[in-house]
Amino acid sequence: MAAVLRSSRYLVGGCSKHVTFAFASTRSMASKTQVGFVGLGNMGNPMAKNLLKHGYPVIATDVFPESCKEVQELGAQIVDNPKADRIITMLPSSPNVIDVYTGPNGILKKVKKGSLLIDSSTIDPSVSKEMAAAAEKMGAVFMDAPVSGGVGAASSGKLTFMVGGAEEEFTAAKELLSCMGANVVYCGQVGTGQAAKICNNMLLAIGMIGTSETMNLGIRLGLDPKLLAKILNMSSGRCWSSDTYNPVPGVMEGVPSGNNYQGGFGTQLMAKDLGLAQNTATNTRTPVPLGSLAHQIYRMMCARGYASKDFSSVFQFLREEEGQ
Amino acid sequence: MAAVLRSSRYLVGGCSKHVTFAFASTRSMASKTQVGFVGLGNMGNPMAKNLLKHGYPVIATDVFPESCKEVQELGAQIVDNPKADRIITMLPSSPNVIDVYTGPNGILKKVKKGSLLIDSSTIDPSVSKEMAAAAEKMGAVFMDAPVSGGVGAASSGKLTFMVGGAEEEFTAAKELLSCMGANVVYCGQVGTGQAAKICNNMLLAIGMIGTSETMNLGIRLGLDPKLLAKILNMSSGRCWSSDTYNPVPGVMEGVPSGNNYQGGFGTQLMAKDLGLAQNTATNTRTPVPLGSLAHQIYRMMCARGYASKDFSSVFQFLREEEGQ
Amino acid sequence: MAAVLRSSRYLVGGCSKHVTFAFASTRSMASKTQVGFVGLGNMGNPMAKNLLKHGYPVIATDVFPESCKEVQELGAQIVDNPKADRIITMLPSSPNVIDVYTGPNGILKKVKKGSLLIDSSTIDPSVSKEMAAAAEKMGAVFMDAPVSGGVGAASSGKLTFMVGGAEEEFTAAKELLSCMGANVVYCGQVGTGQAAKICNNMLLAIGMIGTSETMNLGIRLGLDPKLLAKILNMSSGRCWSSDTYNPVPGVMEGVPSGNNYQGGFGTQLMAKDLGLAQNTATNTRTPVPLGSLAHQIYRMMCARGYASKDFSSVFQFLREEEGQ
Amino acid sequence: MAAVLRSSRYLVGGCSKHVTFAFASTRSMASKTQVGFVGLGNMGNPMAKNLLKHGYPVIATDVFPESCKEVQELGAQIVDNPKADRIITMLPSSPNVIDVYTGPNGILKKVKKGSLLIDSSTIDPSVSKEMAAAAEKMGAVFMDAPVSGGVGAASSGKLTFMVGGAEEEFTAAKELLSCMGANVVYCGQVGTGQAAKICNNMLLAIGMIGTSETMNLGIRLGLDPKLLAKILNMSSGRCWSSDTYNPVPGVMEGVPSGNNYQGGFGTQLMAKDLGLAQNTATNTRTPVPLGSLAHQIYRMMCARGYASKDFSSVFQFLREEEGQ
Repeated sequence: MAAVLRSSRYLVGGCSKHVTFAFASTRSMASKTQVGFVGLGNMGNPMAKNLLKHGYPVIATDVFPESCKEVQELGAQIVDNPKADRIITMLPSSPNVIDVYTGPNGILKKVKKGSLLIDSSTIDPSVSKEMAAAAEKMGAVFMDAPVSGGVGAASSGKLTFMVGGAEEEFTAAKELLSCMGANVVYCGQVGTGQAAKICNNMLLAIGMIGTSETMNLGIRLGLDPKLLAKILNMSSGRCWSSDTYNPVPGVMEGVPSGNNYQGGFGTQLMAKDLGLAQNTATNTRTPVPLGSLAHQIYRMMCARGYASKDFSSVFQFLREEEGQ
Repeated sequence: MAAVLRSSRYLVGGCSKHVTFAFASTRSMASKTQVGFVGLGNMGNPMAKNLLKHGYPVIATDVFPESCKEVQELGAQIVDNPKADRIITMLPSSPNVIDVYTGPNGILKKVKKGSLLIDSSTIDPSVSKEMAAAAEKMGAVFMDAPVSGGVGAASSGKLTFMVGGAEEEFTAAKELLSCMGANVVYCGQVGTGQAAKICNNMLLAIGMIGTSETMNLGIRLGLDPKLLAKILNMSSGRCWSSDTYNPVPGVMEGVPSGNNYQGGFGTQLMAKDLGLAQNTATNTRTPVPLGSLAHQIYRMMCARGYASKDFSSVFQFLREEEGQ
Repeated sequence: MAAVLRSSRYLVGGCSKHVTFAFASTRSMASKTQVGFVGLGNMGNPMAKNLLKHGYPVIATDVFPESCKEVQELGAQIVDNPKADRIITMLPSSPNVIDVYTGPNGILKKVKKGSLLIDSSTIDPSVSKEMAAAAEKMGAVFMDAPVSGGVGAASSGKLTFMVGGAEEEFTAAKELLSCMGANVVYCGQVGTGQAAKICNNMLLAIGMIGTSETMNLGIRLGLDPKLLAKILNMSSGRCWSSDTYNPVPGVMEGVPSGNNYQGGFGTQLMAKDLGLAQNTATNTRTPVPLGSLAHQIYRMMCARGYASKDFSSVFQFLREEEGQ
Repeated sequence: MAAVLRSSRYLVGGCSKHVTFAFASTRSMASKTQVGFVGLGNMGNPMAKNLLKHGYPVIATDVFPESCKEVQELGAQIVDNPKADRIITMLPSSPNVIDVYTGPNGILKKVKKGSLLIDSSTIDPSVSKEMAAAAEKMGAVFMDAPVSGGVGAASSGKLTFMVGGAEEEFTAAKELLSCMGANVVYCGQVGTGQAAKICNNMLLAIGMIGTSETMNLGIRLGLDPKLLAKILNMSSGRCWSSDTYNPVPGVMEGVPSGNNYQGGFGTQLMAKDLGLAQNTATNTRTPVPLGSLAHQIYRMMCARGYASKDFSSVFQFLREEEGQ
C-alpha cells in the first residue's frame, strides 16, 4: 500500500500496477480472448511475451519470419494477418502504420465491427488521426498508445503508455496495456498520446544537450564534474538529464555515459522523434527554436558517426577531441 | 539530525543553517568585529540587514546615498570607503567590481594585510581571478561567492552561495555567508563560484525556453496543459522549469506565470547572465549551441519589450498573439 | 546578340525571351489550342492573363467565383473542371494540389491520355512525385514548375520557372511557361523544380536574417548603414539581401524596407517555404541548422504580428523597440 | 577624374593602385622615413616586405626571432622595440595588442608625440578604443586598420584595409596602407574598422554555412550541384559563398573545396572572428541569432578536428560520412 501511495504522486490516472491487476483479475476469465499483435521487433517481442505471461492467447505476425520464433515457442500462433477483437501494433514509423492498417492486405480490410485497435508505434499524430477515421468507417476503434521506456522496460513490463482516443474505450485498452506497462496515462482524443510522447522527447533532447553543454563548460572553467552535477541538481538547473542520466562519464553509475555510450536510446532514434516534433510544430505553425536546433544537432551527430550511440553521447560530440 | 544527514546529500559543504549557527555562536563573541559592505541595492540591502540581525557591526556604502538609509536606521555606519578585516561586495556587473576593488579610490588601495574580501556579484570568472591576483599582491584574500535565489531569499536569509577561493579560507567565509544564506557551497579555486552560478543559469534558461516550447506545442496538439505538465514531470522531460516554475498560466500557483509574469527573475537579468556564459564559453572555446541560442532569444525578447518581465514570459513571447 | 550570349552563361536552359518567342511563333498557329488553368489567385490571375495575351484560349476555374471575373472579361471561359490537353495549376499548398489532381472531382479522374499537366504551386517535392506517378497511371505527364518572382513579375511576365519532369517534355512546357516568365530552367526529374525553389528560398531567408543581424550590429558599433552596406557589397559578406534588397530603411530605394515593409514577399509566405525546406530536410535526414533557425525566427515573427509584412522586416523585429 | 571622385565615396580612397602610387610618388622622397613594424607572422611578413618594396626603410620586431630573418635579408633593421614616427602592428589577438602597446616594455612607454600608430590586427573594437585613448594621453594617434584578404592578398599587396580613427589622419595612414593593399576604406571613428571587419566576417560565415546546407539539401533532393549553384547565383539565394567560393567539391575551380579544403581561411580563425562578433554583440546587447549559431557550428567543427581546414569545409562537416 505504501508503494501505491508513493507511486500515485507520479502517475496520472494513478493506475498502480497492483490495483490494475486486482481489477483486471475479476474479469480476466471472460476477457482473455485472443489478442492480435503486429510487429515483433526489439520492443514488440518482449511486449508480446508479457501478454502471453499474463495468460492472453496471442496471434502474431511480423514481416521478418525469424522475429516470430521466440513468441511462437512461448505459445503464440503465427499467421499472416491476425484477426482478433483486439489488436496491438508496434511498428517503426508512419508509413509502416499506414501500410499495416490501410494497405491492400491491411488490418482494416477485414476488421470486425467493434474491434479495438491499439497502435503503440511512435508516429505523427496526424497519421494516428487518419487511422482512427479509417477505422471508424469500418466500425472499429483505433487508439494511439506510444510508450516511453526502452527495451529493458518492455522486458520487465514497466513501460509507460500514453493513450489517445475515445475515453470510454480507455478501460478496455488499459486492461491489455497494464500487462506490458507500469503506467497507463490517458491523454485525450486520438493523437494526444503521440503528442505527449513527442513533447516529452523534445524536452528530453533539449535537456540532454543543455546538460552536456553546461557540464562541458563547467569542466573547462575548472569545476569538478561530480560537484557541478550536485550543484545543478540542488538548484534551478536540475533536470532528468542532470540528475538521472548524466552524460558525463564518471558522474553517475549505471548509465550509458559510464559504458562508452552503448545501450540506452540511440541518437538516430532521438533524431527520428525530433523529426516528428518538428513536423508537428511546422504543421501547427508553432515556433520551437531550441527543439529545432536540438533536432539539427542530433542530425549532425548522425552524419558524423554517432547514429547508434546513446543520445547522451552529445557530451562527447561537443567535447574537444583528444590531441587537439 | 536525520534532516541534517538527508540534506547533506544535496549540500556540498553540508552546512544546514542550524548546525552552522550552533557552531558560529561558540566563537561569535570573538569574531563579531566590523564587516564592510559595498553595494546596497535590491540584493545587498537585505543581505546587510541579515548581517546586522546576526549581531555583526556593519560599515557600509553605496553610490546612491538613498540606498543607505534603511541599513543606517538599523545601526549600520555609512562611510565613503569602508575599511574592515572582512568586506562583502554586491555589485551589478564586472566593471563595477573592477572599479570598486582596483579603481583610484578602490578597496585594494588601502586594504589591511590578511583581510578577507568576498564578492557576491555575478560577474565574469576571469574578472574574479584578476581581483584575486590583485588582492594577493596586497596581502589580502579575495573569494567569489555569487548567490542563487532572488530578493525573497535574500530577505529571508535563504540564499545559496557558491564560493570559489582558497579552501583554507572557506570556514571564515562561511561564518558570514551563513547569516545570509541557507546553503554555502565550496566550489574550488577562485572563479569557480561564478562558474557554477553561470552554468546553472545557462541550463535554467535552456530548460525554461524548452519547457515553454514544449508546453506550447502540446497545447496546439490538443493536450491539456496541466495534464501535459504532469506527464513531463513523471517522465524524462522533467526539469525545474516544468515542475517548480511552470511558465504556462494556470498550471501552477505562486509562480510568475500566474501573475502576468511580474516579479521573479527578469528577462534582462537572465540575458545578462547568459552573456556571461557566452563570454566564458567563447574564451574557453567551448561550444554551447543551445546556451547560445537561449541567449539570443532572451536578447530578442528584450528588444521586443519583455526586459522587465519574468524570464518565464518566453512562453508568452513564443505564443501566437491573440487575434492573429 | 552579345547580350543573349552573355546571359546564357547564367540562364540554365539559356532561354532568352527573344529567342524563345521567335521559336514559339513558328509553331504557334498549330499549338495555340486551349490551355486549362486552375487557381486564379494573386499569382494565377496575372499568369492566366499573360497566356491570353499571347493568344492562347484559356479555360479556367477557381474555388472563389469572384477570382474568375477578370480573366473572364478578358476572354477566358470559366468552367467547373477544365478539360484540355495542357493544364496549368497554381495553388496555395500541398493539400490543395492533392485535392485538385486526385480528389473525387480531380483533374486525373477524366484526364486525356497524353495531356501535359504543369503545376506551378510551391509544394513538397514528394507530393509532386506522387502526382506524377498518379498522372502516369492515367497516361498523362505531370511536371512541377514553381516560380520565383512575386506578383509584379507575374504581371509583367518576368517570372523564373524551375521545371522538373521528363526532359523530352520540357520543350512543350517551355512554350507555355515562356509566355509568363523570362527564365525557364530545366532542373531534372520531377520534384527537382520544387527542390530548386525551396533551396533558393532557404538560402535567401538565411541571407536576409544574416544581413539584418549584421547591419544592426554594425549600426550599434557606430558604422553608418550605407557605408556598411557598401563595404559588405565589395567584400565576402555580399549577398542578394545586402546588395539588392537591403532590409535597413534608407540604404536603398525601391525596396520594402523603404516603405515600412509593405509589399514584397510576406513573412508568412517565407515561413511556409521554410516549413517545406524543413520537411524535405527531415525526410532526407539532412542537417540544416541555419535553415532551421531561420524557419523558427520567421515563425516567431508570425506569432508577434509580422505575418503580412515583407520578410525583410526581420531587421525591425531584431532591433530594439523605441523607448527601451 | 570624375570616376575617381565618385568611387572615393565607395572605396573610400578608391583608389586604383596606379593612381595612388602616382600620387604617393610625388611626396615619397620626403615621407619615406622609417616605418616600425611589429608582428612578422604569416600576414605581417609579406606586409612588411611590401613596405620595403615601396622604398620605406623598415625597422621591425617579432617575439619569434626566426620570423625576422626574411625581412632582415631584404633590408629591414631588427630591433627589440622599434621607435619610429609611424608604426604598424599585426598581431594575433586582443591580449597581444594590449601587451605590445601598453605592456611594461610597450610602444606607448616611449612613443614620440605626434606618432601615427596603425594596428592591423583583428581584435575587439573596445580594445582599439582603449588603445586609442592610451595613445592620446601620450600625444600619439592610434588607428585601427584590420584587413580582409588572406596570405595571398598580403603577398600581392591586394589587401583591403578598413580604417577607423580621426578622419584628418586618414590620408597619412592611406599612404602606407596603399603599399600593402588595393583598397583602403575609411569607416569612421576609432574601432569602426574592426566593426566593419567583424560584421563582414559574421555575414560571410552565415552565408557559407547557409550555402553548404542548401547545396547539401539540394543534392539529396536530386539536383546536380553545378546546376543548383547556377540557379542560386541567378536568383535571390546568391551570395559570395555560392558564386565565388563554392564549398562543394567540383562546382568551381581554384577554391579550397577543390583541394580537400586546404589553404584558404581556417575554421579556427573564423571561429575566432565569430567570437569577436559575439562579444561585441553581447556588449551592445544586440541579438545575432544566426551569427551566434554560426559561431557555435565553427566551434563544434574545431572540436571535431576541422580547426585547420578552410572554413568552407562546413559542407563536409554537415554531410553524411561515407559508409553511414
